[in-house]
Amino acid sequence: MKRRDFLKVTGLGAAGAATIAAPAIAQGLPEIKWRMPTSWPKSLDTLYGGAELMAKMVGEATDNKFQIQTFAGGEIVPGLQVLDAVQNGTVEIGHTASYYYFGKDPTFTFGSAVPFGPNMRINQAWYMLGGGRELLNEFYKKYNCISLLAGNTGAQMGGWYRKEIKTPEDLKGLKLRIGGFAGRALQKLGVVPQQIAGGDIYPALEKGTIDAAEWVGPYDDEKLGFAKVAPNYYYPGWWEGGPMLLAFVNLDKWNALPKYYQAVLEQAGHYANNWMMAKYDQANPPALRKLLAAGAKLRPFPAPVMEACYKAAKELHSEVAATNADFKKVYESLTSFSNNGYSWFQVAEIGYDSFMARHSQG
Amino acid sequence: MKRRDFLKVTGLGAAGAATIAAPAIAQGLPEIKWRMPTSWPKSLDTLYGGAELMAKMVGEATDNKFQIQTFAGGEIVPGLQVLDAVQNGTVEIGHTASYYYFGKDPTFTFGSAVPFGPNMRINQAWYMLGGGRELLNEFYKKYNCISLLAGNTGAQMGGWYRKEIKTPEDLKGLKLRIGGFAGRALQKLGVVPQQIAGGDIYPALEKGTIDAAEWVGPYDDEKLGFAKVAPNYYYPGWWEGGPMLLAFVNLDKWNALPKYYQAVLEQAGHYANNWMMAKYDQANPPALRKLLAAGAKLRPFPAPVMEACYKAAKELHSEVAATNADFKKVYESLTSFSNNGYSWFQVAEIGYDSFMARHSQG
Repeated sequence: MKRRDFLKVTGLGAAGAATIAAPAIAQGLPEIKWRMPTSWPKSLDTLYGGAELMAKMVGEATDNKFQIQTFAGGEIVPGLQVLDAVQNGTVEIGHTASYYYFGKDPTFTFGSAVPFGPNMRINQAWYMLGGGRELLNEFYKKYNCISLLAGNTGAQMGGWYRKEIKTPEDLKGLKLRIGGFAGRALQKLGVVPQQIAGGDIYPALEKGTIDAAEWVGPYDDEKLGFAKVAPNYYYPGWWEGGPMLLAFVNLDKWNALPKYYQAVLEQAGHYANNWMMAKYDQANPPALRKLLAAGAKLRPFPAPVMEACYKAAKELHSEVAATNADFKKVYESLTSFSNNGYSWFQVAEIGYDSFMARHSQG
Repeated sequence: MKRRDFLKVTGLGAAGAATIAAPAIAQGLPEIKWRMPTSWPKSLDTLYGGAELMAKMVGEATDNKFQIQTFAGGEIVPGLQVLDAVQNGTVEIGHTASYYYFGKDPTFTFGSAVPFGPNMRINQAWYMLGGGRELLNEFYKKYNCISLLAGNTGAQMGGWYRKEIKTPEDLKGLKLRIGGFAGRALQKLGVVPQQIAGGDIYPALEKGTIDAAEWVGPYDDEKLGFAKVAPNYYYPGWWEGGPMLLAFVNLDKWNALPKYYQAVLEQAGHYANNWMMAKYDQANPPALRKLLAAGAKLRPFPAPVMEACYKAAKELHSEVAATNADFKKVYESLTSFSNNGYSWFQVAEIGYDSFMARHSQG
């Protein structure tokens, strides 16, 4: 008789006894139903998929006693008003990008990404252990919210351009569809930022109403067909080096939750966060191949363009920090953490990745 | 009256009503106590800390009804026999490194890292969405275990060397303390791998009993004081580009858990996984500065050394795959996913990181 069979017969040993008596249904857990609007169309199965998964994992961890129903942007709340709906208690939780709300206060940008901010790993380490979460939640408290980590896209692309960008001069007068705070940095270089919803970008590019458009990265971009009308596909998207997606929870609703449901919610967010990052890392490579086959021309921003953008972004950050104490506090914390982070990242991580990238092409 | 105040007075609106009635104590949840031995001394607050946190998060999500007690290596189970204890049901769960068990079967290496395997992000994406988890759990089933994601160290360092390594010739006869499967690749280049427990490495290096030793990275290495006796600190640790830490759960104990406790356990692992990665990314930079101040000489492995190691590792993988069907299946899945992953990673991620690393030194 094998040892394993023996253990089965004798009831899994002493340590297993408790597990046998466990009821399959968690009868005593309170039943709670929440609604989670998002800023995403269901077709964005990366971003919307992450929100859906977070809700699903909360259900699984509570035997479906804590249920969260997700909604696409516009279903019950307009996609860009998710924060407002959470703030005023219309809904309990929302899944969105913090920087959509930078018009209320530029400090919102840090909950997603700030131009020339850190990559995904360093951004997440700052949020978890570098004081980021505490600083952001102190700020979000003004909006009656707290944040939970709930996704990341990794470094994004710099967008689709009808003409090549060879020098900083080529940015002058360029009508670029770009979301968030980065448009203000690009304005310093003469770019005319355009706010256009996802579905309207393609016709605007095709007609030449705009000259260029940034969206996310290969997997999400491929669905919108930009390669046909603006084939120059630039990288990196320096305004989104590792953007976080946060779920906002109404503070009163959060405080009313039992502690164990708070813990479930937070851990489900981490699970969804990892799934979303994995989903991008899995789906971007084949999408990039498809885009290249469809005529996309992959181009790095030339070094002088990157340097000019870096200078413009840093100037913008200093200007905003001079008049906005919240922005200043968060920016200084993130920048210090990021500089530190890269002092290590450039050693083993970048060294290894560079070698592996060269050896992964065969 | 502000809208927010109004909402408070009227009881948070309809959606909030359910949360007010929620009991603070989860009376109906089954009480379960598990034991989790680890392979780590408590002084490794990254690795042991991750295991501890996973246990803590399970408690928090279940109102402490599901309790997991963690143990340092050797407390109730020898550090390198954690898998065995889980397999035979002595304990329900263990936190260890899969590749410690490569002597039983080299396929165990993939649950941590294989030489010249992918970085943390790609490794994790493979585990979550690239079929890695399913393939590994199919293999672990032979040992009556399933795995849960429970940590990552990121790219490790290549170790501490008394003398410089300038050419592949310098590896011949080198007595190198190295754990896991990588030693077999290095044997092809003349290295004499040494298995030495953490606490014994320093005296062996000091006396010259060994010529070099690899451990983890700056934060963990700094505690052991290698800089004094073997100052040449090489990178990258190509045998550990993004090693996962997995928690092994006894399959019978896992199957006996209510589904919601399975979900809690898995999500707690993801939380701990993210904490551990963040902890390394936060703690490595200052530790590296301390090491440099203490006389460490940071050196990249010269390109010919990296190429010779790559060739040796690939030969080893082919040899093992030829005689081990499990190894072959997992290796092919991981390699294909990794090659794909880097075809995207080298674009926006490496492009962005390289720029940011150059601009983070001021």
